[in-house]
Parts: sequence; C-alpha cells; structure tokens
Amino acid sequence: MKLQEIYARKKKDIAAIEKELERSINVDHALLRETAAHLLKAGGKRIRPVFVLLSGEFGNYDLERMKHVAVPMELIHMSSLVHDDVIDDANTRRGQLTVRSKWDNRVAMYTGDYIFARALEIISGIPKPELHQIMSKAIVQMVIGEMEQIRFFYDTEQSIRDYLLRIRRKTALLIAVSCKLGALSSDADDVTANRLYRFGYNVGMTFQIRDDVLDIRGTEKELGKPPGSDVKQGNITLPVIYALQVPGIREPLRRELERIQAADGQTDVSAFIELIRSSGAMERADRLASRYIDKAIRALDGLPDCQAKRDLIDIAYFIGDRNY
Amino acid sequence: MKLQEIYARKKKDIAAIEKELERSINVDHALLRETAAHLLKAGGKRIRPVFVLLSGEFGNYDLERMKHVAVPMELIHMSSLVHDDVIDDANTRRGQLTVRSKWDNRVAMYTGDYIFARALEIISGIPKPELHQIMSKAIVQMVIGEMEQIRFFYDTEQSIRDYLLRIRRKTALLIAVSCKLGALSSDADDVTANRLYRFGYNVGMTFQIRDDVLDIRGTEKELGKPPGSDVKQGNITLPVIYALQVPGIREPLRRELERIQAADGQTDVSAFIELIRSSGAMERADRLASRYIDKAIRALDGLPDCQAKRDLIDIAYFIGDRNY
Repeated sequence: MKLQEIYARKKKDIAAIEKELERSINVDHALLRETAAHLLKAGGKRIRPVFVLLSGEFGNYDLERMKHVAVPMELIHMSSLVHDDVIDDANTRRGQLTVRSKWDNRVAMYTGDYIFARALEIISGIPKPELHQIMSKAIVQMVIGEMEQIRFFYDTEQSIRDYLLRIRRKTALLIAVSCKLGALSSDADDVTANRLYRFGYNVGMTFQIRDDVLDIRGTEKELGKPPGSDVKQGNITLPVIYALQVPGIREPLRRELERIQAADGQTDVSAFIELIRSSGAMERADRLASRYIDKAIRALDGLPDCQAKRDLIDIAYFIGDRNY
Repeated sequence: MKLQEIYARKKKDIAAIEKELERSINVDHALLRETAAHLLKAGGKRIRPVFVLLSGEFGNYDLERMKHVAVPMELIHMSSLVHDDVIDDANTRRGQLTVRSKWDNRVAMYTGDYIFARALEIISGIPKPELHQIMSKAIVQMVIGEMEQIRFFYDTEQSIRDYLLRIRRKTALLIAVSCKLGALSSDADDVTANRLYRFGYNVGMTFQIRDDVLDIRGTEKELGKPPGSDVKQGNITLPVIYALQVPGIREPLRRELERIQAADGQTDVSAFIELIRSSGAMERADRLASRYIDKAIRALDGLPDCQAKRDLIDIAYFIGDRNY
C-alpha cells in the first residue's frame, strides 16, 4: 500500500494543515518568508501532522484545534532540518538546494530559529499548559540527540545502545509526542494518549533505522543523492555498528572509516558500502526495524478498532517496508 | 548609584536565580553542560531576571514561581547571544572566549538551541498558557530583529525608523516581556503588568542605544574590545545614521563604510570613529536615549510608591547613564 492511499481518507484535512503551514510562515519579513517557503516547498511526508490527525480521532476530533498541534510538530521538524544542514554542510536535501546553500549558514540558522519560535507561538494558542510542557521536553531531548550525533562522529567504539538512545532523542520522541499531543488536544484519556505515544515512539525508531539502512542500501537514483552520505558526515549508523562486530569485517572497515575521516568525507565510499553490504549487518538492521514495528502495532492493542487505528497500522507497515 | 547597590536589596533572590540558572543547564550531557556553564560563567548584568523579580513585587511575590520566569528570560537572552556570535564570527564576548571560538560553530548552534529549549521547558512549568504565548510572541519578534540586522548590514540608506524597529525587536521586547511576565506570574492586574511592560520596553530601547553609542565612544580599556566592533560586522547603529544626515560628514563617512565593507571589517576603523565623534551624532543619540528613559519612568507613574518602583527608577537612570 502506498502512503498516498493511506493518506487519501484524510486528504482534505492534510490539505488544510498544509495551508496552515503556509500561513504560519507568511511573515512580514521578505527574506524569512522566502527561506521558510523554500523549505516548505521541498515537501516531505508530513508524517508528524498525519500522526497528530489520526491520533486526534481517538478523542473529540476538531480540525481547528488539531492545527495548533500538527503545524508546530512539522515546523519543529523543519527547523531541526535547517540546523542539521548547517552542521552537515549539506547542499541538497530531497533533491532541492538547502537554505544554507541557496543563501548562507547565517540565514539558515535564523530561519531555523524563526520557524522554531513560530512553532511555539502556535502551540501556545492551545490553553493546555500540559501540552506545552510535553512538547518542550521533547525538544530538549531532540537537541541533545543532535549534539550526541556530533559527539559520536567516526566513533567506532560506540555501542548499539549509544545509537538507539541517540535516534530515540533525535527522531523517535518527536513522533511519539505528535501522537500523544494529537490525542491529548482532542481530550482523549491518558491511557489512550500513552498507547499512541508508544506507537509513535516505536514507529519513530523504525523510521530512523530504515533511513539509516537506506543510505547504505539505496542507489543514487532511489536516494536522489549517492549512498553513504551519512558516513561522509561522520555519522556511524546501525548497519555500521553491526558490521564492526563481525570478525574479518571489523578491521578493514575501521581502516576505511579512518581513511574517510582523514579525507573529511570528501572521498569515494564504495568500498565502505560494499563491506557493510557483505557483512550481514543490513539484514540484522532490518530485523531490528521489524521488531520495532511489531512493538508499535502491539501498542495499539487496547485501542478501539476504527479506521484511524487501521490507518496507523498501515503507515507503520509502510514505514517498516520503507524503500524509497 | 552603582548597579550592585541597587541590586543589594534583592541580593539573596538574585543568588537563588543564579543557582537555578546553574541547575537549569546541568544536563546529563558532558559537552552541553560544559558549553552552557562556560556561557553562564561569562556573567552579565542579569538585568532580565532582576526586572522579573522587581516586577513581581507589584503582585503576590513568590520566589519559587518567579524562578520559572526569571530563569527562562535569561536563558533566552543567552541563547540569542551564542547564535549571534556564530553570525558575527565573534571570538570574544565580555572578555571571554565565545563558545564558537572555544569549540566551534556547530557546537555553538546546538548550545543555543539547547538553552532555548530548556527555557521553554522551564516556563512551561507555570500553568498559565497566557504567559507562554506572550513569551513565544516576543521570541518570534526577537529572531526577526536578528534577521533584520543582517538585512541592513552596511546599508547607508536605512532610516532611524528602521533602526528603532530593529532594536525594538532585538532587545526591547524581551526586556518588556520580562517585566510583564514578572507581574503576571505574581497575579498582578493587567494594568500594572502593561505599565511595567512599557517601562521595560523603553528601558530596553535605551539599553540598546547606549550599547551602540558605547561601541563608538568607549575606549578599548572600557569596552574590553576595540571600539567599532559593530561597524566591523556591518551593523549600522544610531550614531552612524545620525552622522550620515550631516552634510560634510555624509560623503566621507560613506566612503569609509565602503572601504570597511570591502575589507570585510578586517581593517582599521579609527577614521570612521573620528568622523562620527566629530559629527554631533553622539550627542543626538544621547538625547534620544534620555527621552526613552523619561518615557520609561513616566510609565511607572500610576504604580504604587514602593521600594521596587524606586529600584526600577534607579536601574533606569543607571542604564541611561551607562558608561561601562
């Protein structure tokens, strides 16, 4: 099943969120309007807003109220991407020029700050301080996760646990919180909200693992960029950590990593990619991703059977099979 | 009167805020703890927390509650400084190495993001959504003000109004909001809160004008850095705009600015400084700063006469005379 088919039922509401996203960045400042619009147009799966909307169906669904949660979640995600691009010296994302490359790092930094601040402004329109608190705690963790990523650059001694803790912070918590806030803003009860939180958390873990696997498995055509961009930035992901555990692979892989690090990522990484692909690490990573999907779906067990639940399950399977 | 004397009465509470600031950044992440502590140790006048505390005296003063406003206000200010240092390629601030210079731009960007996120987390502990909204609106404006500063770099056609609007966003609003939130979090009434807001706004305007004047008037010894650092970054401040209005000064000044811009600020700016100092612009800027101080003090007119009010007036005069 394709994502667009799953989204079809919510098409109208997703379009309303998209409109609201556009409005939210339509600021009285020419440059910020331009950079933010550039980011928005680059698209994305809008998975966080969709999770907000679907989770909202487990309470008293009210699109107007949902907007105040769905839009900030996407904005926070976007803002973290602009800052990541500065960190990674990234020139393209999703086949489009990044803000830092089209303008410069300074503009990208303030664009991120601005979008972030707008996100807060919008969510603060909901008179439920509990939601603000949940969101701000997740943001704190997200930023720590991003710092952690830098700390572990080219670190071949890091453990699976280091990796999982990092992607939990960097990716999974914001998706978990999107589900939880979607539920709470619709006055769903706490048990429901926490089930949806666990669902989102486990889907988010899969999402990041899949993303990291794809960067090694994908072709340039599929990815819109050459494979291995993670390692070029120094980012050691799950398949790499698994491969480092394989005798016979560990040493040549470490030498490759040293070589890539010495070249500051400006080098051919095909030997590195080949080593990982031949190590059995990809399959182990796939299995871990599947386990998280299973956990995600089990988290929904106690929830009433409804179309929103079936949609969440479909999206979870889609992300589990993610190959795009 | 010295600032320390005015602060003396609140010494214990200011120390409690300082302690809370330290605690707020004491995160379970070695690098972030280090960078944030470095920032905190660099000091500062803590003018925003002090305004929160003094404004709180116009309501039901409760230090525990105050902490949830005073600490975020200082953290937001600190976070904007770290990001500014990235933008300005600044190597020192208040005589100390900046985070970007001691570590790097990436670490500085995430340190700013982190401190910012912690600020939100702390203020979200107060169950008054209105406060969150006021704060987030001010942050949006602050970021726009920072972008505006870039837009007007080396722009000799900008008006006084452009300048005032920019410093309003960049500096005055956060100080205004510190006063307002100090009052509201103490359950002071809206009229009182808005008077304190106007006070803070006008003090903030003076504060920034004084800062900008000082960068041209001060000696290297007084400033801890050579005068003219604003223009080296491209920042055209009030005295410069006034001087550009003076026939006989305008043309040589424009040529100097072109020369400084062409050298990307890496040049001697003493001729520039001399032109401004001889133009009468410093005196005009002083007069405008004084007018804002008068407005600040008038904003307090309707408030009951109490020690907090007298302290606010003393601080306003101190900032008006600011020469440090």
